[in-house]
Amino acid sequence: MKAGILTAGNEILLGKTLNGNLGFIGQFLAENGFSVNENITVKDEEDEMVYALKELWQHNDIVISTGGLGPTDDDITKNAIARFFGKKLIFKEEISDIVKNRFKKLNKPAPDCNKSQAEVPEGFDWLPNNYGTAPGLYFFSGNKTFVALPGVPIEMQHLLVEEVMPRLKQNYKTQKIFISELHTIEKSESEIAEILQNTLIPSGVNLAFLPQTGRVTLRIYGNSKENCLKLIEEIEKLIGNYIWGRDEDTLPGRLHSVLINYKLTVSVAESCTGGLIQSMLSSLPGASAYFKGGITVYSNEMKEKLLNVSSAVLDKCGAVSKKTAYEMCNGLQSLMKTDLAGAVTGIAGPDGGTEEKPVGTVHICVKYMNNILHKKFLFSGNREMIRLKSAERMLLMYLKILEKSLKENTLDIIK
Amino acid sequence: MKAGILTAGNEILLGKTLNGNLGFIGQFLAENGFSVNENITVKDEEDEMVYALKELWQHNDIVISTGGLGPTDDDITKNAIARFFGKKLIFKEEISDIVKNRFKKLNKPAPDCNKSQAEVPEGFDWLPNNYGTAPGLYFFSGNKTFVALPGVPIEMQHLLVEEVMPRLKQNYKTQKIFISELHTIEKSESEIAEILQNTLIPSGVNLAFLPQTGRVTLRIYGNSKENCLKLIEEIEKLIGNYIWGRDEDTLPGRLHSVLINYKLTVSVAESCTGGLIQSMLSSLPGASAYFKGGITVYSNEMKEKLLNVSSAVLDKCGAVSKKTAYEMCNGLQSLMKTDLAGAVTGIAGPDGGTEEKPVGTVHICVKYMNNILHKKFLFSGNREMIRLKSAERMLLMYLKILEKSLKENTLDIIK
Repeated sequence: MKAGILTAGNEILLGKTLNGNLGFIGQFLAENGFSVNENITVKDEEDEMVYALKELWQHNDIVISTGGLGPTDDDITKNAIARFFGKKLIFKEEISDIVKNRFKKLNKPAPDCNKSQAEVPEGFDWLPNNYGTAPGLYFFSGNKTFVALPGVPIEMQHLLVEEVMPRLKQNYKTQKIFISELHTIEKSESEIAEILQNTLIPSGVNLAFLPQTGRVTLRIYGNSKENCLKLIEEIEKLIGNYIWGRDEDTLPGRLHSVLINYKLTVSVAESCTGGLIQSMLSSLPGASAYFKGGITVYSNEMKEKLLNVSSAVLDKCGAVSKKTAYEMCNGLQSLMKTDLAGAVTGIAGPDGGTEEKPVGTVHICVKYMNNILHKKFLFSGNREMIRLKSAERMLLMYLKILEKSLKENTLDIIK
Repeated sequence: MKAGILTAGNEILLGKTLNGNLGFIGQFLAENGFSVNENITVKDEEDEMVYALKELWQHNDIVISTGGLGPTDDDITKNAIARFFGKKLIFKEEISDIVKNRFKKLNKPAPDCNKSQAEVPEGFDWLPNNYGTAPGLYFFSGNKTFVALPGVPIEMQHLLVEEVMPRLKQNYKTQKIFISELHTIEKSESEIAEILQNTLIPSGVNLAFLPQTGRVTLRIYGNSKENCLKLIEEIEKLIGNYIWGRDEDTLPGRLHSVLINYKLTVSVAESCTGGLIQSMLSSLPGASAYFKGGITVYSNEMKEKLLNVSSAVLDKCGAVSKKTAYEMCNGLQSLMKTDLAGAVTGIAGPDGGTEEKPVGTVHICVKYMNNILHKKFLFSGNREMIRLKSAERMLLMYLKILEKSLKENTLDIIK
């Protein structure tokens, strides 16, 4: 089952943006047993779109286009589709009503140019877009499928997952590839490769290393689920200590589940990460159940004033030190009265490093009841990378101290 | 002068990596007056490559392929090229010597598989690669150019800049494209389109709408810089109030410049954005010069305790209200003693909305000296979008109040 992707992509061809939509579609289709065979990116021009449509329709079973469905003049995908398939564009009252309602909710009149959004090529289905005004288009004929999706990533993803995939699964038999991912931290790609070098990869199984910022994900995939699971078991024996999650797990998501389950609250005091950890802790729906608050204290003055860090410690050990991290964490817990508290202080750079404390030096401290855990890190990379690595390590340390407490039975299951 | 780019891209089609090489080539060619017309990405298979080569060679004056020139088995570009152009592969002693010397310098023997690197299709030139073992390939015939470059970014970039561009400039007359972008906020794509609908687009000028999350960027580009600037002037007359930046401008970057220039400090109190604004304010190197700190106050308790919001206001008006935003902002400025203070409170959803205050209701308040600015918003989208829109609006409101103060001369230029 071959799929071809058509991208309306002035932006991409000018090098102004990367084709992230192709990335999402490629991965999502592969996970669901479909294979993306080729991608053609052309200018947002009707002739170019028609040419690319012709090529893709000829060589593939499924063609998915992204972009060019918006209300303005430069959105020409719909015209190209109508022309290539030889269909008239039909005005659909029900789409128009949805668009009008959307504007009404925002107390705005629906602009005239949104009318074109309500047009659908004859014989095509339209797919409701919950995140924008442009519906998707769907056409199934002679065992071939054509789908047109908007270019805004969130709208495209939502339509692909909710509307398109169920239809594709109905129309085509796929051989599902079994895919599983193990998320590791602490060890580099080459260190993990070395540990795993004598591991036998069963036939029909692939092992891919996907380096992330500051950590590595292992992807195990293949036709034989059984053989994949064998390999996973093998890997877990060897590097289980460095695995913090699987598949769709994210660090904020893992922490979210534990905090909700055990009805615990959390707070954070940040220096070098400057709000990044707060933003992760508050990212998931329902976060207000556990995230009581956070503070960014960039200046020493604020560290003293808000978190009660002693000026003696700041003078003697410096803002980036184990003792300051400790005092920040203690001060925060007193202030916020949360079950779990954490503090991070470090040098994200590019300036501010010294020989003794180079850029990338980061102290993280987490506290749960009377348990306290401190770690010093030396992260490589630029400012953005050091901040991200620090934030992720903080979330991991929250998890670690809870796990430890759970094992020691000091955690009250129901408060 | 049309250019087509061929990408050998298993990884890209599986969604494991983005086509960064296309981004570099697209931008570099545009800057030098060449226009990338289309990109085809196919699997690393000879048949697929030949098919794509045929398509691209037919439709373009210049075809550039990336990837598949390495020494390992899956690098099949050279065979596909030889087959498509009907040329034999000729072994070149001088390339082989270069490769051998490279390994000699590393005190390693040249692996056998590197021999294939010394093969060049008959009649093709080869381009010396200073960063790797795979030379580029160059072929000029009947006013058409074919170029094959390795896929490793640094090697590809070096060959394109040093070897390919001088040859292209020799063979073709180019006309540089002028590109400028105007970043707008507050109006939707269709609203802006409606305002601009009677604007005449001068000949040779293109106007593209690039919708972002919660705002729109306009790109004006074309061969005639003069005509582009005319259109920009026209647009500025009509929607100048909604334009906050140009070209490479970002909201954190704009604010960064102003705060550094005027030696001002800033702080923020966040509710629904939960740290996102702090993380934007601290994102740029040098942020510690102006960002004194920030606070996330999710609970009413913390709003009272840390920011001195009165329980009467919280009881009467609720946490998401103009008065609470005011009091948060005032409390923050007293606490942090920054020149500029801001507070945001709202409902990011998906839960917590009511008929009176639906999900997306957000109050933002900023304060500079005695100037205070409040706005109520109703944002659409999911939690992530509402948070992002709120955060960006906050940065914009910081800019707005400073601009206002600058105009009223209440801003001390040097403190």
